[in-house]
Amino acid sequence: MFKRYLPILAWLPHYNRRLGAADLLAGLIVTVMVIPQSLAYALLAGLPAVVGLYASILPAVLYALLGTSRTLAVGPVAIIALMTGAALSSVASPGSPEYLQAALVLSLLSGLILTVMGLLRLGFFTNFLSHPVIAGFLSASGILIAVSQAAHLLGVEASGYTAIALLGSLATRLGAVHWPTLALGAGTLIFLLLCRRYAKGMLRHLGLAETGAALLARSGPVLAVAATTALSWQLGLAELGVAVVGDIPGGLPPLTLPGVDISLWRALLVPALLISVVGFVESISMAQMLAARRRQRISPNQELIGLGGANLAAAFSAGMPVTGGLSRTVINDEAGAQTPMAGLFAALGIGLVTLAFTPLLQHLPIATLAATITVAVLTLVDIPMIRQTWRYSRADFSAMAVTILLTLVEGVEAGIISGVLLSMGLFLYRTSRPHSAIVGRIPGTEHFRSVTRHEVQTLSHVAFLRIDESLYFANARYLEDTVHAMVVRRPGLEHVVLICSAVNLIDASALESLDAINARLKESDVTLHLAEIKGPVMDRLKRSDFLDDLTGRVFLSTYAAWQALGNPPE
Amino acid sequence: MFKRYLPILAWLPHYNRRLGAADLLAGLIVTVMVIPQSLAYALLAGLPAVVGLYASILPAVLYALLGTSRTLAVGPVAIIALMTGAALSSVASPGSPEYLQAALVLSLLSGLILTVMGLLRLGFFTNFLSHPVIAGFLSASGILIAVSQAAHLLGVEASGYTAIALLGSLATRLGAVHWPTLALGAGTLIFLLLCRRYAKGMLRHLGLAETGAALLARSGPVLAVAATTALSWQLGLAELGVAVVGDIPGGLPPLTLPGVDISLWRALLVPALLISVVGFVESISMAQMLAARRRQRISPNQELIGLGGANLAAAFSAGMPVTGGLSRTVINDEAGAQTPMAGLFAALGIGLVTLAFTPLLQHLPIATLAATITVAVLTLVDIPMIRQTWRYSRADFSAMAVTILLTLVEGVEAGIISGVLLSMGLFLYRTSRPHSAIVGRIPGTEHFRSVTRHEVQTLSHVAFLRIDESLYFANARYLEDTVHAMVVRRPGLEHVVLICSAVNLIDASALESLDAINARLKESDVTLHLAEIKGPVMDRLKRSDFLDDLTGRVFLSTYAAWQALGNPPE
Repeated sequence: MFKRYLPILAWLPHYNRRLGAADLLAGLIVTVMVIPQSLAYALLAGLPAVVGLYASILPAVLYALLGTSRTLAVGPVAIIALMTGAALSSVASPGSPEYLQAALVLSLLSGLILTVMGLLRLGFFTNFLSHPVIAGFLSASGILIAVSQAAHLLGVEASGYTAIALLGSLATRLGAVHWPTLALGAGTLIFLLLCRRYAKGMLRHLGLAETGAALLARSGPVLAVAATTALSWQLGLAELGVAVVGDIPGGLPPLTLPGVDISLWRALLVPALLISVVGFVESISMAQMLAARRRQRISPNQELIGLGGANLAAAFSAGMPVTGGLSRTVINDEAGAQTPMAGLFAALGIGLVTLAFTPLLQHLPIATLAATITVAVLTLVDIPMIRQTWRYSRADFSAMAVTILLTLVEGVEAGIISGVLLSMGLFLYRTSRPHSAIVGRIPGTEHFRSVTRHEVQTLSHVAFLRIDESLYFANARYLEDTVHAMVVRRPGLEHVVLICSAVNLIDASALESLDAINARLKESDVTLHLAEIKGPVMDRLKRSDFLDDLTGRVFLSTYAAWQALGNPPE
Repeated sequence: MFKRYLPILAWLPHYNRRLGAADLLAGLIVTVMVIPQSLAYALLAGLPAVVGLYASILPAVLYALLGTSRTLAVGPVAIIALMTGAALSSVASPGSPEYLQAALVLSLLSGLILTVMGLLRLGFFTNFLSHPVIAGFLSASGILIAVSQAAHLLGVEASGYTAIALLGSLATRLGAVHWPTLALGAGTLIFLLLCRRYAKGMLRHLGLAETGAALLARSGPVLAVAATTALSWQLGLAELGVAVVGDIPGGLPPLTLPGVDISLWRALLVPALLISVVGFVESISMAQMLAARRRQRISPNQELIGLGGANLAAAFSAGMPVTGGLSRTVINDEAGAQTPMAGLFAALGIGLVTLAFTPLLQHLPIATLAATITVAVLTLVDIPMIRQTWRYSRADFSAMAVTILLTLVEGVEAGIISGVLLSMGLFLYRTSRPHSAIVGRIPGTEHFRSVTRHEVQTLSHVAFLRIDESLYFANARYLEDTVHAMVVRRPGLEHVVLICSAVNLIDASALESLDAINARLKESDVTLHLAEIKGPVMDRLKRSDFLDDLTGRVFLSTYAAWQALGNPPE
C-alpha cells in the first residue's frame, strides 16, 4: 500500500554508494544543462525567466518521491509552456500580477486533475489521443513555437498565440528589425544547428566514448549561453538595445498560495485539463520508452499521481505547469542517472543556482534563449511520420491534418480538441458502415474466405455472410439493409448463415435489428442461422428471447453449418 | 432523376378509380380524426390552436409530393410539439408575436437542415441515436408531456419545460384547482382510457369487422371533442371559468415569411437540429415498419427531403415543425389509404375545416384536448422495453437511464444530447479494453476456441492469442500490455500467433503498437506471427513496412499456423 503510492520506498532501502556517485554526477550535469531551457520556457509562457528555475526545484523533488520512472526529469517543457502562455493570456495580460497568479491557479488545477485521475485510475483516458493526433499536434506546436521565437531573434515585438496572428504581427514590424539582436540570434542559431548536426561525430573522431560524446554534444546551449552572456556583458549589448534577461531576484522560491477566484478557476479548467492530458502523454511515452530499455516497469496511474504532485508543488512555490521533459530526461539518462536520487541532486543544484548565482544570468541575451528553443522544437516537426501516415491511412491522416491546421490557425486547444473528436468520429463512422463478405469454403479445408478474393466452393441455397464488425446501434440498420439486399438478389435462397467471428459485441439496438431480420426472413421462408458466436456474446444473447425466436440454429463453426445445411461434394 | 426526387411520378401514372375511392375515404376519416390532436399539439407547443390546423395542410401536401412512404401522415406530433415549446420559450414569451415568428424560423431551420441532410445523403447520421436512447427519450417525453397537461386538467396555471419545474409549479397551485374543469377533464380522461382498453373488443363483439372496429375505437377523441364541445356550449362552461379554445380565425393559412434575425437563427440552430433528427427518426421508423408490411421500399435520404419540404411549407404557411406522426399514420393506414393521394385529400379536408368550420371549435374545452394528449402520450412510456434493456445490457441501460433522467430534470435537449454522447462514449470505452482469448485446437478439427471455455489442445511453446476487437488508437496500448503480460507469464514461449479474425481495422496508432510488440518480442527471442488477417486489413498492411519487419509469418488460418509451428499429435 505504502509502496504503491510512494515508489521511493522500493529503491531507497537498496541505495548504495555506487548508485549515489552515478546519481550525483548526473545531477550536476543536469543542473548545468537545463538552466538555459528552464529560463527559455518560462519566457515562452510569458512569465519571468526565474519562474522556470523555481519550477525545476520543488516539482522535481515531488516527482522523485511519487513517480515510478527511475530517470524521468520533470520541469517546464516547450509544449506545456506554449499551452500555458495561450491559456494565461486569455485571462490576464503578460507581466501583470494577475498573470503570475493565474499561472499558479493553472498549476494547481493541473495538479488536482492529474492526482484525481491517478487516484481514480483513469490513465486509460489518454489512450483516446491517437498517435497521428499527437504527432500532428507536436509538429504544429514545433512550428508555432519556432514562429513565436522569430520575434526574439529579430529583436521586434510580436503578439498572439496562433501562427497566423504571430506571422501577421511580425510582417508589420519587419522594418523595425534590430540588427545587433539578429546578428547575435542568427549566430547562436547556426552554432546550435551545427552542434546538433556535427558535434557528436567530431567528438567521437577525437576519441571520446559514445556516451561522453553524446553528452558533450548536448552542451551546445550551455556553451552558447556562457559565450553570449560574456559577450553581452563585455560589449554592453543591453545598452545597444539587445534584450537581456535582466535582474533575477536571488533566493529560494517563495511560498505562494493560488487564489480561489471561482470565475478564474472556471476559465482555466479546460486549458488545465488539456495541459494535464498532453503533458501526461508526453511524459508517459518517454518514461515507458526508457523503462522498456532498462527492463523496468512504469505504472501509468502512479505516474499521474507523481506528475500531479509535481504540479501541486509548482503551484505553491511560484512555479508554472510542469511535466516530464524530453530533452532534460535524455540528458539525465545519458549522464548516467540510476535512480530518482539524480533528480533530487539536480533540484538541489538548481536551488543553489537560484539562491546564489542568478546575477551571472543578468546579461544573458533573450535572443540566445530564443535560438535554444527554436533548435529544440524543430525536432518536434516529424515530416517522415506525416508522410507515413498519409501512405498508410487517409482517415488517420485527415485527423492529423486537421490537428496541424487548427493548431496553427486557431491555437493549441482548438487543434487538439478537434483532432481527438475527429479521430473518434472517424472511428465511429467507419464502424457504422461495416465491411461484410459472402464467403465460401476453401476446397478440402474447414476454412472459409471471401468469394471475391479466393477460389472457393459455394452452395446456391445457403448464403454464408461474414460480418466484419461488432454489431451496435450505429450499424444495426446497415446490417438489416445488407441482409435484405442479399436476399432480394438471390431468389433460390433457403438459409442465411451469419458468421459472427468478428462480432465482439451485440448491443440492445443490434439485438432488435437481428430480431427484425429474423422476422423478415421468416416471412420469405428463409431460415436464419448464426455461426462462430464468441463466448461472451453468446452469454449475453442467452439473457434475451432472441435465441428462442431464431428460426434456425447456432453452429459452433461455419464448417459445421456447411455440413448440416448442404451436401458438399467431398 | 425526376423520379428519384419526385416519388409522386412513380405512382401517379398508374392511379385509378379503385385507388381513388379508397384514398378519398381514408382522407375523410383522417380529416375528422386528426383535428383534435392538431389543435392539442399546437397548444402543447405554446402556440394558438389554429397553428396545428395550418401545419396539417400545406406540409402534408409537400410530403405527398416528395415523400417515399405511401401511407405516412405528416403533421404536428407530440414530441416535436414539446421540443418546439421548449425551444421557443427560451427565446420569446408564449403569446407574443415574437413567439409566433420564432416558430416559423424554427420550422424553416428544420426544413433546411432536413433538406440539406437529404441532398448530402446524410441519413446515416440518425443511426447514432441508439434504440435504448430513443426508447428512453420517448418514455421520458411521454411522462413530461403528461405532467405538462396536468395543469390543464386541473384548471390551474403551470409553467416550465422540465418535469421538475412543472411539478414544482403545480405543487404551489394545488389550492387553486378549478373543480368544473377537473370534472370535465377527468371524465374525458376516463372515457378515453376505457375506449382504448375496451372499445375495440366490444365493437368486435357487436359484429364489426377487425379493421372497422379498430378504426371506430380510435374515434374516441372525436366523440369526446364533439360531446364536450356541445356540453360546453349548452351549459356555457366558459362563463364558469372552464378554459376553451375560443375564437379561431377562419380562412386558409396566411402566407408567412420567417425573419432573418441572425441571433435568433443562431439561438434556434441546435434545437432545430435536434427536432429534425428526432422527428426524422420517429417518422422513418414508422414508415419503414409500414413499408415492410406492404413490401414497399423507403428511401431514407428522400424521406429527409420529403420532411424537409414539409417543414419549409410550415414555415411559409403560419405553421410549426412537423413530422410523420404515429397516431395519424396508424389512422390513415387503418382507414385503407393506398397512396399519398389520401394525404392530399386529408389536407384538402382540413383546409375546408379551417376555411369554414372553425366556429364549431370555439367552445371546445382545453381540458378535453389535455385529456386527449395525456392518453396518447402514455403509450410512449415503454416499461417492458426498459426492463428488457436492463436485463440484456447494463451499458445500454445506463445510456437509457441517463436519457430518461436528464430529459425529466434538465429538459428534452439535455436528455437526448447526453444520451447520444454517453452511448458513443460507452462504445468507445468498451472497444478500448478489448476482450482477447488464448485459444487451443478442438481435437480432430481445424477449429480453435478459448482455452477457458472448451476442452482444447494447446502447445507449450506457441501461444495462440485471439484479439476480439479492431485495433485502433484507443486500445493499441492495451494490446501491448496484454501481449507483454502473457510473455512474462510463459517463460518457455517461442512463438506468439495473433489471430486477427475479429480485427476489422488496424489504424496508424495500432500499427505502431504492433511494431513495438514485434520489436519487444524479438528482444526476448519470441517470434511474432499473424493469422486470419482479413483481405482489406492485409491490403493496408502491405502499404506499410510492418510486414518486412515482422519476425514471423502471416498464416491464412490458425490451423496452418498450428501445423507449421507445432507437431500436433494427430
